[in-house]
Amino acid sequence: MISVAIQLKAQFYDLDPMGMVWHGHYARYLEEARCALLDHIGYNYQQMAESGYLWPIVEMQLKYVRPLQFQQEMRITATLVEYENRARIDYLIVDPHTEQVITRARTTQVAVDANSKEMQLVSPAIFLQKVQQVLT
Amino acid sequence: MISVAIQLKAQFYDLDPMGMVWHGHYARYLEEARCALLDHIGYNYQQMAESGYLWPIVEMQLKYVRPLQFQQEMRITATLVEYENRARIDYLIVDPHTEQVITRARTTQVAVDANSKEMQLVSPAIFLQKVQQVLT
Amino acid sequence: MISVAIQLKAQFYDLDPMGMVWHGHYARYLEEARCALLDHIGYNYQQMAESGYLWPIVEMQLKYVRPLQFQQEMRITATLVEYENRARIDYLIVDPHTEQVITRARTTQVAVDANSKEMQLVSPAIFLQKVQQVLT
Amino acid sequence: MISVAIQLKAQFYDLDPMGMVWHGHYARYLEEARCALLDHIGYNYQQMAESGYLWPIVEMQLKYVRPLQFQQEMRITATLVEYENRARIDYLIVDPHTEQVITRARTTQVAVDANSKEMQLVSPAIFLQKVQQVLT
Repeated sequence: MISVAIQLKAQFYDLDPMGMVWHGHYARYLEEARCALLDHIGYNYQQMAESGYLWPIVEMQLKYVRPLQFQQEMRITATLVEYENRARIDYLIVDPHTEQVITRARTTQVAVDANSKEMQLVSPAIFLQKVQQVLT
Repeated sequence: MISVAIQLKAQFYDLDPMGMVWHGHYARYLEEARCALLDHIGYNYQQMAESGYLWPIVEMQLKYVRPLQFQQEMRITATLVEYENRARIDYLIVDPHTEQVITRARTTQVAVDANSKEMQLVSPAIFLQKVQQVLT
Repeated sequence: MISVAIQLKAQFYDLDPMGMVWHGHYARYLEEARCALLDHIGYNYQQMAESGYLWPIVEMQLKYVRPLQFQQEMRITATLVEYENRARIDYLIVDPHTEQVITRARTTQVAVDANSKEMQLVSPAIFLQKVQQVLT
Repeated sequence: MISVAIQLKAQFYDLDPMGMVWHGHYARYLEEARCALLDHIGYNYQQMAESGYLWPIVEMQLKYVRPLQFQQEMRITATLVEYENRARIDYLIVDPHTEQVITRARTTQVAVDANSKEMQLVSPAIFLQKVQQVLT
């Protein structure tokens, strides 16, 4: 399993009228962790584009367990849980001071040929190779 | 079933480097449809606050079926599919010109007592009454 | 003077912990009005791209006169105040019910050649023609 | 002069269809630097609220000198340039590797009594004291 963790802090611009992070902003937090994971694999957004594939998000699921307050720190761990046919990433957001779970999430991406716009039923060889390199 | 539809247009500020709406922005689209549904029920954000309850989102799920492009129109239908213990809302985003499905989504909210911060295992009477009034 | 007005409503996701629209979100409101103005001129984002020019924002100024609350309506008038060397647009946001001023703003865009990335010291002929057509 | 610098990186969710940071997102960058400056002064958002004053942004001005690309780093320096009657903060965003200027900006905030909602023509004593403490 390939896993990368980043640390972020809830910002003022993330807050809703209750003083908590608005639920829609977590997509940004997940993306920062996902980018760190893909950087680690050596297959980030620019490398995807160079390889001739787009990887749109086709599913996103979030469970909000506890709210986040102003300046509260969070550790976001992104783990690649499936890669052969699609890239499925699980996320766990915890408070690094208490280890309490804040949010659990999952995103699914599929490869799309940048020219033909055809969705790939199996992951392109270049992604499989990069994942194998990190796993071994 | 209580259902409300709104119509929106993808804006330039919603677009990602592929020229498609960035997946995280759909949370805003869902919220506009949800607010229209809750207005229709007579239990919008201000009425929730006046009733002594907060209704945080505890789950959000999205399936992105087709992308949205600049100035593409969308019709978002929000339907209350569960209300007795929680407010579960299903969303369907379609292109109003082709009726093609763009996105399917679901959000779940639970009532929290604004003072005690205690999560309610059944929906407060005021919400049930408002839903019943619209249903009959 | 070419002028176009649109009407928007402050959304829940725009609100800050004081229950007012967060100051940074007004850039989205201005952009919707600017897009409506450019559509009217026949030189929107896609037509700019087709003409071989990008038009990045090089300046933005906002004066926040009164706050905006949840579901408050606003009328945003965008007026092209300069076009020969750059596109300067003035914005006035008012409450359509009271005509009270909420925000005044201005953006400045310059043409950049999409290939050479060179900034143009005078506006390209295609933009000047389109403006003249609307003015006459 | 009181000055604080932070370092950020342009994220994927910040990018527009040209692959550059959308101009409206800089308000978030400025806010992170402003919060760091106000933390340093000991008068952040929570301390403002406790002191009985809100400090809404009444003006924001930005000059975009160079664009920001995906994963480009930026150093944002926020400097308090006026504090006696209002809090005026100047921002300079530079690329930390080349020292090239990316953006210059300014925000102005005024104190508003949280109860009476009256705008203060001079800064409240508590803010002046905190600024004096850091200056000496």
